[in-house]
Amino acid sequence: MPTIKDVAKYANVSVATVSRVLNKKGYVSKEAEENVLKAIADLNYKPNSVARSLYHKTSKMIGLLIPDISNPFFPELARAVEDVALTYGYTVVICNTDEDIRKEAQYLEALQQKYIDGLILTTNQLSADNYENLGIPLVALDRQFSNRVPTVSSKNYEGARQATEYLIENGSEFIAHIRGPYHVKPADDRYQGFKDVVEEQGIAHIVVDCDFTMASAMEVTEGLFEKYSTIDAVFASSDIIAAGVLKVAKNINKRIPEDLQIIGFDGIPLGEMLTPALTTVAQPIYKMGALSARLLIKQIEKEPLDLINYEVKTTIQYRETTRSDT
Amino acid sequence: MPTIKDVAKYANVSVATVSRVLNKKGYVSKEAEENVLKAIADLNYKPNSVARSLYHKTSKMIGLLIPDISNPFFPELARAVEDVALTYGYTVVICNTDEDIRKEAQYLEALQQKYIDGLILTTNQLSADNYENLGIPLVALDRQFSNRVPTVSSKNYEGARQATEYLIENGSEFIAHIRGPYHVKPADDRYQGFKDVVEEQGIAHIVVDCDFTMASAMEVTEGLFEKYSTIDAVFASSDIIAAGVLKVAKNINKRIPEDLQIIGFDGIPLGEMLTPALTTVAQPIYKMGALSARLLIKQIEKEPLDLINYEVKTTIQYRETTRSDT
Repeated sequence: MPTIKDVAKYANVSVATVSRVLNKKGYVSKEAEENVLKAIADLNYKPNSVARSLYHKTSKMIGLLIPDISNPFFPELARAVEDVALTYGYTVVICNTDEDIRKEAQYLEALQQKYIDGLILTTNQLSADNYENLGIPLVALDRQFSNRVPTVSSKNYEGARQATEYLIENGSEFIAHIRGPYHVKPADDRYQGFKDVVEEQGIAHIVVDCDFTMASAMEVTEGLFEKYSTIDAVFASSDIIAAGVLKVAKNINKRIPEDLQIIGFDGIPLGEMLTPALTTVAQPIYKMGALSARLLIKQIEKEPLDLINYEVKTTIQYRETTRSDT
Repeated sequence: MPTIKDVAKYANVSVATVSRVLNKKGYVSKEAEENVLKAIADLNYKPNSVARSLYHKTSKMIGLLIPDISNPFFPELARAVEDVALTYGYTVVICNTDEDIRKEAQYLEALQQKYIDGLILTTNQLSADNYENLGIPLVALDRQFSNRVPTVSSKNYEGARQATEYLIENGSEFIAHIRGPYHVKPADDRYQGFKDVVEEQGIAHIVVDCDFTMASAMEVTEGLFEKYSTIDAVFASSDIIAAGVLKVAKNINKRIPEDLQIIGFDGIPLGEMLTPALTTVAQPIYKMGALSARLLIKQIEKEPLDLINYEVKTTIQYRETTRSDT
C-alpha cells in the first residue's frame, strides 16, 4: 500500500504539503495541490483512517444505540439510518443495549474512545447527562431526554387518539389499553391519547402495564381476559404487544374482529404476517430513521438545522383485526 | 482526563517506561511496573484507544456482516455474538449489507481502515479472496466460502431430512419444497436433504425457487397452489418463507394441518407468534452466534482452535402446522 511519503515523492512536494492537502488546513499552492491530488489518484493512496481519527478526533462513524434488536421495529430503523449514513460516507455501528444499563455504559465508553462522530439514541437507560457529557452531536429517535438534543418521533398522542376513536366508531364499548413501559415517552404519549378519548367519550376502559415483549403481553392479556370477559377491544402500545394479545385471544376462541377488535402501533412487517392481519397505527419507520441520520450528519458537519424536533405523522393501516363498520 | 505524561510523573518514571508497560513490550523493572500500574489506577488513566489502534493495529472491535437485518434470524445471531464479545472486552460493529455487493465492499473497506480485529461473515456476496485479503481473522457463520476459514453452521442436511421424514410419517404424499437462493450453502444443503428423502421413499414432490423474503414466498406459493392443488405438505427453507406459505394457504382456506402440513427452518420467535404456530427445524441460534464469537476471539488472541468447523444439531419444534400422527 502506498504511504504518504510515496505520495509526496510522486507529487514532488514535501510530506507536510501532502498532509496540508489531506487535512484541508494551511496554505498550499494551486499547482502543488493538483499534483498531490493526482498522485493520490494515480497511486490509489488511502489515508490511514485511524491516524486521521487521531489527528482530527473524528472517525466517520456514527453509533446507533437500540434497546432490543429482536423487536423488528429497531432493525427497520437501523436499515434507514444506515442507508442515509452510507450515502454521506459514514459507517454505522449498531449497538444493542438490551436495556441493560451496564451494556449501554460499556458501549458509550467504547464508542467515545473511538472518536465516534455522533450518536443516535433510541434508548434512554442512562440519565441525559451521560449522553451529553460525550460532547458529540446527538439525535434522540423515538425517545426524548433533553431539550437540547434534536429529536425525531411520531405523533404518538395523535396516533393513539385516532386508534381509540376508530375502535369506538366500530362499536366497541369496553376497551383495554395495554401500555408500554413508564418514562418511555412514546408509551406515555400513546397512553395519554387513549385515556383522553375514552374519558371524553365516556367509554368503559381499563389500562394494564406491560413491557414491549410478546411474552409479557401474553401473560398480561391472559389475566385481563380472565377478569374482564366482556372487553371488546384492545389498543396495544406496540405491534409486538398486539401479536401477544391476538395469540391469547385466539387460544380462548374469541372471534376477531367480531368479539374483539385489536389495534397495534408501529407498522412492522410482522403485522401483515399474522392471521388475521393486524390493524395498526403505522409509523413511517424508514422516514424516521433517515431523518435522524440526516439530522445527525448535519450537526457533525456543522450545517444549520431547519428544525430541532421533527414529529412525523402516523397512519392507520386497516387490516383484519378491526371491523370496517359497526 | 489524565495523559500518559501525568502517569509518568506520578509514577516517577519516563513516558517511555509507561509506554512499555502499556504495550507489554521491552524491559521494565518490577518496581517501575508496579508504580506505573498504581499510577494508572490512582489517576483512572485510560489509554487513548485510537492511538493504541494506530500503534498496535488493533481496535478491540469485531465486525459482523449480516445480509438482512429485517430477517429476525440475524438479530438473534447478533445478540449472541455481542454478548460473548462484550465478555471478552470487544465491541461488535453490526453491518447490514442487504445482499448488496457495493454496500458490502464499502463496509469491508471502512472496517479494514479502522483496524477491525476480526470479522464474522454471514454473507458471501463477494468472492472468498475479498475477505481473505483483509488479512484478519475470519469466521464464516451459517455460510461457507473457503476451506481456510473456520465455520459454524447447523447440520442443515440432516435437519432437512428429519423435517421431510416427519411430513411423510404424518401421511403427506405430495410434498413441495420451497428452497432458498442457490449457492447459499444452508439453502443448498436443505434442498439436498429434502431431495434425498423424497427420492429414497418414492414420494411425489416439487421444488420451487425463492429468496428468503416473505413477499417472494407468498408469490411463489400462490403459483404453486394454483398449479398443484393436491400438494399436502410444504417444507420451507426458512421460517420467513413458511410464514408466507401459511398466509397464502389460509387465504385460500386450506385447513392446516388437516389439508396441508407446513414445516419451516430456523426457529425464530416469529414461528410461535403465528396461528397456527409453526412447526420448524430449530437451529440453536444463540449457540451458533456465541460459538462464532468465541472462535473469532481465539484467533485474534492467537489461541489454538480445537476445531475448525463446528456443526451444531437442529431439533424439530413440534407445533401446530403439522399433524402429530397420521
